[in-house]
Amino acid sequence: MATTLKQVFRMKEGTNETSYAKASYLQKEVLSLTKPLREKAIREFYYREQPTTLCIADLGCSSVELSNLSPVFGLLESVENARRELGKGPQEYQIYLNDLPGNDFNTIFRSLGSFGEKLKQEMGDDFGHCFTNGAPGSFHERLFPFNHMHFIHSSYGLHWLSKVPKGIEDNKGNINIAQTSPPHVIKAYYEQFERDLWSFLRCRSEEVVVGGMMVLTIVGRKTLEPYSRESCYWWEILATALKDMVVEGFIDEDKSNTFNTPFYAPSEAELGFLVEKEGSFNLNQVQISEVSWKPNEQHKNSHPFESDHDAFTKCIRAVTEYLVTSHFGESIVEEVYHRYKEFVKVSMGKENNVFISITVSLTRNG
Amino acid sequence: MATTLKQVFRMKEGTNETSYAKASYLQKEVLSLTKPLREKAIREFYYREQPTTLCIADLGCSSVELSNLSPVFGLLESVENARRELGKGPQEYQIYLNDLPGNDFNTIFRSLGSFGEKLKQEMGDDFGHCFTNGAPGSFHERLFPFNHMHFIHSSYGLHWLSKVPKGIEDNKGNINIAQTSPPHVIKAYYEQFERDLWSFLRCRSEEVVVGGMMVLTIVGRKTLEPYSRESCYWWEILATALKDMVVEGFIDEDKSNTFNTPFYAPSEAELGFLVEKEGSFNLNQVQISEVSWKPNEQHKNSHPFESDHDAFTKCIRAVTEYLVTSHFGESIVEEVYHRYKEFVKVSMGKENNVFISITVSLTRNG
Repeated sequence: MATTLKQVFRMKEGTNETSYAKASYLQKEVLSLTKPLREKAIREFYYREQPTTLCIADLGCSSVELSNLSPVFGLLESVENARRELGKGPQEYQIYLNDLPGNDFNTIFRSLGSFGEKLKQEMGDDFGHCFTNGAPGSFHERLFPFNHMHFIHSSYGLHWLSKVPKGIEDNKGNINIAQTSPPHVIKAYYEQFERDLWSFLRCRSEEVVVGGMMVLTIVGRKTLEPYSRESCYWWEILATALKDMVVEGFIDEDKSNTFNTPFYAPSEAELGFLVEKEGSFNLNQVQISEVSWKPNEQHKNSHPFESDHDAFTKCIRAVTEYLVTSHFGESIVEEVYHRYKEFVKVSMGKENNVFISITVSLTRNG
Repeated sequence: MATTLKQVFRMKEGTNETSYAKASYLQKEVLSLTKPLREKAIREFYYREQPTTLCIADLGCSSVELSNLSPVFGLLESVENARRELGKGPQEYQIYLNDLPGNDFNTIFRSLGSFGEKLKQEMGDDFGHCFTNGAPGSFHERLFPFNHMHFIHSSYGLHWLSKVPKGIEDNKGNINIAQTSPPHVIKAYYEQFERDLWSFLRCRSEEVVVGGMMVLTIVGRKTLEPYSRESCYWWEILATALKDMVVEGFIDEDKSNTFNTPFYAPSEAELGFLVEKEGSFNLNQVQISEVSWKPNEQHKNSHPFESDHDAFTKCIRAVTEYLVTSHFGESIVEEVYHRYKEFVKVSMGKENNVFISITVSLTRNG
């Protein structure tokens, strides 16, 4: 994969069954678990600063509508409560929704009318203005003007590396870090993660005002060992499905050997260490969240799935489909996820797989 | 038509033959004629103010790519020249591209990579940052934070009214103002234009900093009389095509009688008077531009058309197709524009039709 993630990466667009917006119950669950931490952070900021226009960005927003999977409504609600407690007049908000330029922004924008209605109904008569902007671009580069941003949120974005690291030729067929990856491969992934997080923090430090805050959630691991089944097994299944298809002649071996995925799940210590080392932000709080692969009752009710393994496969497919098709073409995609689903079914019958997420709350120091 | 323009209005999306981006040579010609006035205005502003981040908005940007029909590149070029003359360091720009939420923003965003390349190549090594945002919404409402904007551009947007005015039931079948419209219909359209321009200027006055500038281009008329063939004939042809289709039984008469178009082309005096009356902006300069319906040699070379009347029909279709299909459905659309093209062919054989545009340059007073 010689291209960078910027060129091939996007969540499945639109609002139908297999779209990211509909299928991504895991991300929804994580957003719900991290809600208190996130809303405490913005509330703290607002109590301290009360800017004329409060600027909020969601980095890696995907194509979900603002009244659905987005954290924006909850953030506004928290600030509005704080505003009333402080006895302040109507507040202006500027919301920036960021994702890569290939993301389906049209779907988000076409839902802004109903989001506006929801704000009117639920926020009360003295609600000010909320201006929503799309901000297409890579968060590994600068996205916003100097000294402009008050609160930045990013969920499930930063484990995606800007590119597959160099020097991992021996990782053939493992897609990314796997139990069997040799140490130098793991090191290459870690170092790419380090470079990416560093540039992310550098860029944000120019954009966020002193005292401004960031809340970042990332797929992580609880183990000290660099390989963690919890953070990598969902990928290993994809690798296994692809390998089987090579053996059966559906996929060229060469093609399969060059498919590597720019993904790294850090430990809490690695994340904390890198934030400290870069130095622009203070680490306020860390939260580790555990989410089961199986959709909970609430998600099952709101969006009926055929089965748990079907739900999980749709969720992973919405995230990974563009990576797969941009490398292998469209023709194999149904077969890949059919096989994926079978593997998940077997795994779910034997064990309770979980995802680990790490959420950090940071303040821009001055 | 009980719906507002906000719900049904958008330019034909995408980048193929019939898309707005490809077909709209008239708009391109107008942008080219108004380039000196526009670039003089932003240059003047920059010489005076030099903000850390220069905020520019294009209202009614449609779905054209930034390196194609957009005025943004020329504006940046002018400021960069001024910056070098002043011996200043790299400048940050924040560009807001506005249109209604149904507009095809995905097409614009997917072209940002090549626009970035163009900036890098043509602006020199000391070019700063250019952050591009989508700002979906109606410009009859607030779009941007208080006191945020330095330069606002809008071309071919403000002749579209926010809705069909009330009290025009007698206008049946005329679509909008026509030679045969009774005085109270014309008055209703003028008054709706007045309300819309007023709310536009009110909203912008809260968003534009004191000394900030706006350059607005609008389809207008040179006549004092409220009906002008130059500003309305392109619509009257559509009305005639539809009326013929009623007679021939393709379209329901009731359906045709309720099709009215929210469009008004003011005179220079009307526009100037309303700006003065609202009072937030000073009128610096006015320019009247005349553009032939026929594509010029340059446009013919860059995008080969079958014939002049084919080119003109494609151009009008890209603007009006959604208005027609949202009222009459998809089934009649090919026939409507087939007839439209025949009428244009006859008209072009007899006379040289032109469009009149009025461009005003305004400064926010303080």
